[in-house]
Amino acid sequence: MGDRKELTAAMFIGVRGDGMISFGSGQPDLPPPREVYQILPDYTGFKYGLVQGQENLREALARQYPRSTAESFVITNGASEALDLALRSIAWIRQKKGDHRPKCLLCRPYYYSYLPLVRYAGFEPVFTDLVDGRIVPEDFQAKVRDCRVVLINSPSNPTGRVEAIETLKAIEKITEDLGIYILSDEVYKDLIYVRENYLLKGPHVVTINSFSKTFAMTGLRVGYLWSLDTELVRTVIEMKSHTSMNTSIIAQEMAYTATTVPKSYMDEQLKVWEARRDLIYEGMAAIGLDLWKPEGAFYVLPRIEDPADFVWDMFTDHKVITYLGEWFGAPDRVRFSYALDVDKIEEGLARVDRYLKHRAKHRVK
Amino acid sequence: MGDRKELTAAMFIGVRGDGMISFGSGQPDLPPPREVYQILPDYTGFKYGLVQGQENLREALARQYPRSTAESFVITNGASEALDLALRSIAWIRQKKGDHRPKCLLCRPYYYSYLPLVRYAGFEPVFTDLVDGRIVPEDFQAKVRDCRVVLINSPSNPTGRVEAIETLKAIEKITEDLGIYILSDEVYKDLIYVRENYLLKGPHVVTINSFSKTFAMTGLRVGYLWSLDTELVRTVIEMKSHTSMNTSIIAQEMAYTATTVPKSYMDEQLKVWEARRDLIYEGMAAIGLDLWKPEGAFYVLPRIEDPADFVWDMFTDHKVITYLGEWFGAPDRVRFSYALDVDKIEEGLARVDRYLKHRAKHRVK
Repeated sequence: MGDRKELTAAMFIGVRGDGMISFGSGQPDLPPPREVYQILPDYTGFKYGLVQGQENLREALARQYPRSTAESFVITNGASEALDLALRSIAWIRQKKGDHRPKCLLCRPYYYSYLPLVRYAGFEPVFTDLVDGRIVPEDFQAKVRDCRVVLINSPSNPTGRVEAIETLKAIEKITEDLGIYILSDEVYKDLIYVRENYLLKGPHVVTINSFSKTFAMTGLRVGYLWSLDTELVRTVIEMKSHTSMNTSIIAQEMAYTATTVPKSYMDEQLKVWEARRDLIYEGMAAIGLDLWKPEGAFYVLPRIEDPADFVWDMFTDHKVITYLGEWFGAPDRVRFSYALDVDKIEEGLARVDRYLKHRAKHRVK
Repeated sequence: MGDRKELTAAMFIGVRGDGMISFGSGQPDLPPPREVYQILPDYTGFKYGLVQGQENLREALARQYPRSTAESFVITNGASEALDLALRSIAWIRQKKGDHRPKCLLCRPYYYSYLPLVRYAGFEPVFTDLVDGRIVPEDFQAKVRDCRVVLINSPSNPTGRVEAIETLKAIEKITEDLGIYILSDEVYKDLIYVRENYLLKGPHVVTINSFSKTFAMTGLRVGYLWSLDTELVRTVIEMKSHTSMNTSIIAQEMAYTATTVPKSYMDEQLKVWEARRDLIYEGMAAIGLDLWKPEGAFYVLPRIEDPADFVWDMFTDHKVITYLGEWFGAPDRVRFSYALDVDKIEEGLARVDRYLKHRAKHRVK
């Protein structure tokens, strides 16, 4: 077995190779709607755009969000930049008030970028542990009092869980009462199998979203944030005018055309994802793995003994890429993305089954 | 006259309107080479790219930089993100060594984003004042000893000056001796009227560059950093994997085609810029303004009495956009970008001349 650090790099790059099956990277495998490419042949733009984002795109988004105008949005280089700018801007606002080490509440397991983003921005992370992949309101309430900001991610990467609407409403209330910012990462809002998305609302809510998952535009990098907190939006725009300026104007124009795609596109996509979800969930249950049924997004996070051995052995000996739960704050689990064809999911599951049976048989007790 | 804050916003947005002449924004007005658009009709990409940047683009750049491989580059959302990531990464590296408030040396006047970027990243800014738009080696040497990083920008925005090669070599030596990072912002490297660009070299040099000025691709947002400091490059990639992920793959592909454009394109551009430079420099000298002769980039920074009144009056009463020198650390000056047609430059200069003559005549002594 090679060096695990190098292997990690290879896995992240997404080594394909002959017969490689990747449950690794969280990106849709199906192409974006064809409308997205229709503007390209005649495209001639090259000048700076507004730092806040192109007006046509923000106006289209304003029609999707209640009580909004184009002024409530900032278009960003993917949801990643929206999260980074929101965290940095909150830290900047707090710093001006003399608060140099504010606390940020994370629900654990968390998306693996949250922890570094929170630390880069100068926050001290505080954790509330999910139970069965869901927020425990009592623990949340106890921990949040000390914090200036909380990150919510429903549907969640990596758990695949969707929070109950009552929980989300309770979170709205307590954070509003305490004047705490919520960053609500809703990038999987159009990939929910159990209900419609519930948009978190409140005076200090910052909703993070993206064209990456809904429209399979990951590499094009168009995300956005939405907030009715005008001080925050102003701070984000000012910061972005120095840290990256406008998001690429051609990618924004492609994103704008995505907003004109009929809703039936999303319905069709959801059917594909749901079939895959059923396949991997039932397949893993049949293998005997302990996992939560995914309600949204496209991940499962089964509990697996000796997860590090599992991940490296599957990669090096069985050509299956999976991600260590540890990277997501879940050290006894392994993350599988099911953004791949059903026949590949089946073959991948078969390899996992063979490996686990073999390991169980030959293990020194 | 309206509220000056609103006016600033209007000026930055680049209000055109009938008869408006903008010496404001620093963006080329001539379109990019047509090769840049040739890939668009058949473009079908959508998946994540490497966070470090597309391989074809980094390999093309490696052929332009001495002792380089594709590994020495990170492709970014314009030079802005390259600067931001480099500063944050250096601050992060220093923080791990227990240095929580490192100092960064800036040459004043400076590009207006430098100061906020330095502050956002947690540095304390230190200034060395340029004399006749040039670094004074003795003052530089005295100030730099205390710093962990220094920002060099030759050709300079806003001064239009190019540093002497001996000065740059002296800076290389002293920073190398002291183990100090140089961030060398060379985005105007292909717009120098007096000599070839001198690429700053050294173990801790981070060169910032962009396709925005050379190829008029400002709004598409493709920049990069180059460094032989592997710890720094690694830290930047790790950080970018969380803060924005890959730079838009379609914009990178357009930038790649720009690298295939024959050198004659740049030569032709340079002739256009040089004619404009001569026109504005001689025109301002004829008006009697005190300014430095631009040696690169496309800005002049004349000394103007009561610069705030000048900027607002020219905007509101004479439809001429200029930027306050104060935004660039030069409170007794005004910045003019000459990225516009010669007939507009002439008309703009005529308006400035009329205004200044009128003001001189009616001024209360």
